[in-house]
Amino acid sequence: MTAVMKTVGYAHRHPKRKQITFRPIGIIRSALREPENRDWDDVVSEIRIDRKWAEGLKGLEDFSHIIVLFYLSRSIGIRLQTHPKGREDLPLVGMFATRSPHRPNPIALTICRLLKRKGTRLTVKGLDAIDGTPVIDIKPYIPDNDLVKRARVAKWIHRLRSNRV
Amino acid sequence: MTAVMKTVGYAHRHPKRKQITFRPIGIIRSALREPENRDWDDVVSEIRIDRKWAEGLKGLEDFSHIIVLFYLSRSIGIRLQTHPKGREDLPLVGMFATRSPHRPNPIALTICRLLKRKGTRLTVKGLDAIDGTPVIDIKPYIPDNDLVKRARVAKWIHRLRSNRV
Repeated sequence: MTAVMKTVGYAHRHPKRKQITFRPIGIIRSALREPENRDWDDVVSEIRIDRKWAEGLKGLEDFSHIIVLFYLSRSIGIRLQTHPKGREDLPLVGMFATRSPHRPNPIALTICRLLKRKGTRLTVKGLDAIDGTPVIDIKPYIPDNDLVKRARVAKWIHRLRSNRV
Repeated sequence: MTAVMKTVGYAHRHPKRKQITFRPIGIIRSALREPENRDWDDVVSEIRIDRKWAEGLKGLEDFSHIIVLFYLSRSIGIRLQTHPKGREDLPLVGMFATRSPHRPNPIALTICRLLKRKGTRLTVKGLDAIDGTPVIDIKPYIPDNDLVKRARVAKWIHRLRSNRV
């Protein structure tokens, strides 16, 4: 990154902006404590937002779905290319063409159902994160922004689906 | 998609780890240099990924849409509650119930069309980011994970849409 950032306008004006520092806004509580290659659709877990952000959650319960950004704190190392889900029958593709955790900034994004908000505790369904995962941000799912009706995907995605273990 | 694979217990070993440090993976180049409250749907811009991640982009072009996570480097301050889009006719809601940039971790998420990839340069349409914006991550848009067909939203979202300026 260094070389490129030095040559572009923004970094010129802010040469020290090479690192971006975030702090968790909360933590995920789940019965699932170890990473698993499983179907998470029916997993219910709780997001506990730090109390100092309580007011910032007002009205979130009016949305049926939320976008959760969380930190893959147990992801170690970057794999530039990977077989999706570790399946060698699928092609080797770039990490940015997959949702692999082994990426330069190990941040995950999952859209899940918000079942309930009680103060700073959000009960969610379908969040594929283990107990203790730090949460970076929560956003409402807004179809006008976030819904793509006819997206084209790589062929391996179809194979992933049809051969679901 | 499983978020975490076989990795070592980092968060468990560092339960008090409070800071998360990321580095930009690239930068956005656009003709638009100042934040504007405009319709970005037809804006075409370029994402320049750092060359060291070139191999990690293989196969991204097989997806029509990508999810771009970017850093709102010009967002200053946190506003716990806000009138969406600064419109006082809309209710005051928590920052986490909006896409306001004034949030604890100023990270934005936009799903946009990938028109072309040429090496580490991605031409995209509909990315609401100004020139010089640091990019944190790129992910493929995968309907199986990311598409929600019948999402409920807050009432103010409908008013936002019907009264579009």
